[in-house]
Amino acid sequence: MSIYLHDIPLSTAQDHLKQSLEAAGLWQVLGSETIKLDENALGRVLAEPIWASISSPHYHASAMDGFAVISENTSGAGPSTPLTFPVEAESAHYVDTGDPLPEWANAVIPIENIESLDENNNITQAIQRPASIRIRAAVAPWSHIRPLGEDIVATQLVLPSGHTLRPVDLGAVAASGHQEINVARKPRVAILPTGTELVPIGSKLKSGDILEYNSLVLAAQIKTMGGEPKRYPITKDDFDLICNNVLDAAKDHDLILLNAGSSAGMEDFSSKVVEKLGQLLVHGVAVRPGHPVILGIINREGKQVPIIGVPGYPVSAALTTEIFVEPLMAKWLGRRPFELPTEEAKLTRKITSPAGDADYVRVAAGMVGGNLLVAPLSRGAGVITSLVQADGLVVLPPGVQGMEAGGKVHVRLYRSKSELERTILCIGSHDLILDLMAQFLTESDRRLVSANAGSQGGLIAIKRGEAHMAGSHLLDPENGEYNISYIRRFVPDVPIKLVTLAGREQGLAVRRGNPKAVHGLNDITRADVQFINRQRGSGTRVLLDYHLNQLGISPDLIHGYHQEEYTHLGVAAAVASGRATCGLVIAAAAQALDLDFIPLFQERYDLVFPQEYANSQLLAPLFDLLAAPGFRTAVSKLAGYDVSMTGNVVLDDKF
Amino acid sequence: MSIYLHDIPLSTAQDHLKQSLEAAGLWQVLGSETIKLDENALGRVLAEPIWASISSPHYHASAMDGFAVISENTSGAGPSTPLTFPVEAESAHYVDTGDPLPEWANAVIPIENIESLDENNNITQAIQRPASIRIRAAVAPWSHIRPLGEDIVATQLVLPSGHTLRPVDLGAVAASGHQEINVARKPRVAILPTGTELVPIGSKLKSGDILEYNSLVLAAQIKTMGGEPKRYPITKDDFDLICNNVLDAAKDHDLILLNAGSSAGMEDFSSKVVEKLGQLLVHGVAVRPGHPVILGIINREGKQVPIIGVPGYPVSAALTTEIFVEPLMAKWLGRRPFELPTEEAKLTRKITSPAGDADYVRVAAGMVGGNLLVAPLSRGAGVITSLVQADGLVVLPPGVQGMEAGGKVHVRLYRSKSELERTILCIGSHDLILDLMAQFLTESDRRLVSANAGSQGGLIAIKRGEAHMAGSHLLDPENGEYNISYIRRFVPDVPIKLVTLAGREQGLAVRRGNPKAVHGLNDITRADVQFINRQRGSGTRVLLDYHLNQLGISPDLIHGYHQEEYTHLGVAAAVASGRATCGLVIAAAAQALDLDFIPLFQERYDLVFPQEYANSQLLAPLFDLLAAPGFRTAVSKLAGYDVSMTGNVVLDDKF
Repeated sequence: MSIYLHDIPLSTAQDHLKQSLEAAGLWQVLGSETIKLDENALGRVLAEPIWASISSPHYHASAMDGFAVISENTSGAGPSTPLTFPVEAESAHYVDTGDPLPEWANAVIPIENIESLDENNNITQAIQRPASIRIRAAVAPWSHIRPLGEDIVATQLVLPSGHTLRPVDLGAVAASGHQEINVARKPRVAILPTGTELVPIGSKLKSGDILEYNSLVLAAQIKTMGGEPKRYPITKDDFDLICNNVLDAAKDHDLILLNAGSSAGMEDFSSKVVEKLGQLLVHGVAVRPGHPVILGIINREGKQVPIIGVPGYPVSAALTTEIFVEPLMAKWLGRRPFELPTEEAKLTRKITSPAGDADYVRVAAGMVGGNLLVAPLSRGAGVITSLVQADGLVVLPPGVQGMEAGGKVHVRLYRSKSELERTILCIGSHDLILDLMAQFLTESDRRLVSANAGSQGGLIAIKRGEAHMAGSHLLDPENGEYNISYIRRFVPDVPIKLVTLAGREQGLAVRRGNPKAVHGLNDITRADVQFINRQRGSGTRVLLDYHLNQLGISPDLIHGYHQEEYTHLGVAAAVASGRATCGLVIAAAAQALDLDFIPLFQERYDLVFPQEYANSQLLAPLFDLLAAPGFRTAVSKLAGYDVSMTGNVVLDDKF
Repeated sequence: MSIYLHDIPLSTAQDHLKQSLEAAGLWQVLGSETIKLDENALGRVLAEPIWASISSPHYHASAMDGFAVISENTSGAGPSTPLTFPVEAESAHYVDTGDPLPEWANAVIPIENIESLDENNNITQAIQRPASIRIRAAVAPWSHIRPLGEDIVATQLVLPSGHTLRPVDLGAVAASGHQEINVARKPRVAILPTGTELVPIGSKLKSGDILEYNSLVLAAQIKTMGGEPKRYPITKDDFDLICNNVLDAAKDHDLILLNAGSSAGMEDFSSKVVEKLGQLLVHGVAVRPGHPVILGIINREGKQVPIIGVPGYPVSAALTTEIFVEPLMAKWLGRRPFELPTEEAKLTRKITSPAGDADYVRVAAGMVGGNLLVAPLSRGAGVITSLVQADGLVVLPPGVQGMEAGGKVHVRLYRSKSELERTILCIGSHDLILDLMAQFLTESDRRLVSANAGSQGGLIAIKRGEAHMAGSHLLDPENGEYNISYIRRFVPDVPIKLVTLAGREQGLAVRRGNPKAVHGLNDITRADVQFINRQRGSGTRVLLDYHLNQLGISPDLIHGYHQEEYTHLGVAAAVASGRATCGLVIAAAAQALDLDFIPLFQERYDLVFPQEYANSQLLAPLFDLLAAPGFRTAVSKLAGYDVSMTGNVVLDDKF
């Protein structure tokens, strides 16, 4: 077993797959089928061009309800020189919109422009069959007529092959005389999730269980691309079982996606399966996330079926499918590959990237001060929310080892520019209330994107003009005041409006029932209490030290004071697992892990706005929200929040 | 019966509908339903926000295959100072990717970075259960670990309500602990085509029959918007029948689209139907195309159902649905309305527009010389191909009476800019071969858009820098030569490459079997022959006059010489209907109307390229095509074309 992956460049891997499929006769449209022209044809790809078999209209048709006349006979008619035509052949004849023009006629006068007369030349209401009509304006030849072939001329090209059918296309195909169409057959794609640790969606989870949802994402991606996915049930890590399922899938499918089992560990069978059942083309591609991609071709009774070993991490899985499967589906359907609009943008934070890898960086995006800014999201291959939150992708080509903050990048955008113009970019400390705010703001047609960079990171973003607002809860140990001194230090030159979002409780998380009876900071020095701390520099650590100092408690007396976690959740997890008795967290973290919470301190969580944006159209709905009773009620229902100060203006610099 | 429509401004009509629906409690999300989380959830709209009910990962998980260790114990390890750890608790423990971290561990060393040792400290292949491991580098705390909640923290907002589900969203919803989701119910929309003249798709047509395909387009539009369409069969123009069907539709649907019957003619029942069964809100909207729009609300046993009378012309029908139905569907589903990206562009041709109307102008678009250019397509409400060919919409607001050529407009684009950058814009005389070319060029990832402006119109477009190429067949009667003298006159300052596309036959179209035995121009002076001519100034008229002059035939001897049609098809139609015996057309026009064709003259149809584009990357595939045997074979299969001169360079100015 090879335990080292030999990554090859992405373009080499793509070429290798393409050439092998060409050799197998599989780099072309897979086949076509004739389907009925109805609304189910929507989104299908034409396998042949549509040439018109009839003209439309197929006769000279009246374009209006009115009277068909001979244009030349109307010349001279005017407001004070009306002309009268008896309703009879070669003179005037009533036509509805769409009626064929009589042979002798070459113009139509709309019904609004005539006077209907009875036998005595009096105006009558017998619109359709008057004795005669009177007109007060001449009409040019071919007026109000849709000439034969105005829309479509028999034999003309209506739609090229490879075209994906939209609603109006269906009408044009019908109008050109077709009732059936020849479309590319949908590629059938088998998706096989493998892994003993996997459990189906909805399972009750125990430690080590992994929810299997990659097959769901992959199936939905295949549908979006125009293919027909089939999700197999989870296969355990058993070489023979996997081989059997792959062979079964090869029977009726055009492509097999074998998910997970593609890295180099002990239970990774994918490459061995491919080697046994066919030809292993590529094992390992220099693309991030996604490295342990496998490309191969399975042979089953003379039939060759490409197989892709898709990495197990959800972000790797989704991006691998975009990178390798989408071009293949495009080729098989005969359509153009999907393409995202690309714009130039400014990077808000440094990105590092291993040399040699094509690096797909998910970014949030927004327009601040007329600039398109992109903020890198979590780089973790396991963080599917980074794809959910992504407004775009920045691809760093191999050879580029990273990019400094402020650098120009090209971003492939998932969202329209007008959506980005309605996006409020919040960088700084994250809090659950921002999520709630995001939900409320959708109703005012605003999108709140918040990137977690910590309170100080938020102030730096404000200084750099990279955010419309920042969340901050920085306590000044000198004076016990929040945020103001930090704002003056970090953003001395920007006029600021500082508004309180809410009071937030910090307290001790303990196991359900509080078995060690911990009630305050005085208890954490006890010998039977094991504490778990946050890292130095975190707001919560500052808060703890401030209060220990106030109480005159020496940190040396606390067991575990030097044991550090990096997040509220990390602290709560240590308590939940029994590694520690208690730790200082916000209430929400305790609630998330089903712990008891002993409230100790209120801290103030404020929003920091440059005045430039505080008064903007963009942020107006957000200020409305801070004043809205419905929003305050929703916040006060969250554990550990106090809305009595919500909306208080703490600072209001001159603009 | 009111036969005059009183058009009200578009925004007034939209407000009126909105207020009436608000009063009826119908301007909100219609309802929700709980569905299983599987790939069929794709494209559904969340009726509630998704809050995470579990964290992901829900434990500290190893991010790699490797050994869990205590970080602090690894310090000091280096290339020449390896450290060895027995594989046992509190020392080193094998973990697969995704395995829970042992309680005592706080880091993972990837398997690639260790040496496996047996009992005698020799290197072994027992990767998973060696006796001990040796490392040559220290590892930082929390390395290669996915901490609890790295992706999702229980209680956090995963997706807001109103969000349309994409593939990755499904994964995130699953990861956050849900197996069912609450989505907006799909609005049910009944589509009722009415009209005695309508026949179903696929019918054999007689004069006056109109193919009913609007219901197909509307149904597909509704699907695209996220609704559930139902197409009713065609109802004749019978007031009681229409009433019955509308009432039937009101029973199970949220919206009724009553197609056609909404203008002011004799058979237009729609407004009367609405008045009888409910409340008529609006009859006539100042929007073009689309004027005779009807908005109303039907009452059926206390249930109120909005009804929209959609005009019968296909372009009006499709645009009315976009303008009035899409915002309603967005509201009913709780999602944002669709929005097309908007860009500034330069207009290639003057548009006139009636004051007071909101005018929706379909345009073709392309990038020429770095400018985004838009060319207005056919304005006819009956020309569905204008929607098919449209790359975008230019909306002239009420009050704007038109726009000059060269004016700046905002265009809502249906296509991405990168697609437009691969678009070859051809303005000038149209020929069937350009259709064939368009089809061939899709294979080289080029899009050929040809706007028919006549040969001279094409040369003017070239002069103005508004086209990459032009089709031209302008005969100089002075010297019998094609195009060159016109090019020198119209585009004296642009270096040109002139390349022959093909020889094209002009000849006499006669009824099948040539009953009057017409064989040449000498026959058309006969007393029993009725001729039909093209208008003065057309290329074909120039050609005819040239040859009459050559033969010494006086036009006065020809019956019908002064009877003019404006298109090849118009001439062919006059022959097909018996109004004329013969006329001069290209072979394709005769073929389109199933006429016999007597070939008389070859004319040369050339392509005119500014040298700037003749050598561009964009046009390279087109020049390749002119040389490709497959393309020539395809052209020579068309009636009346000669490819012996195809690709000949007639002019090649210095650049």
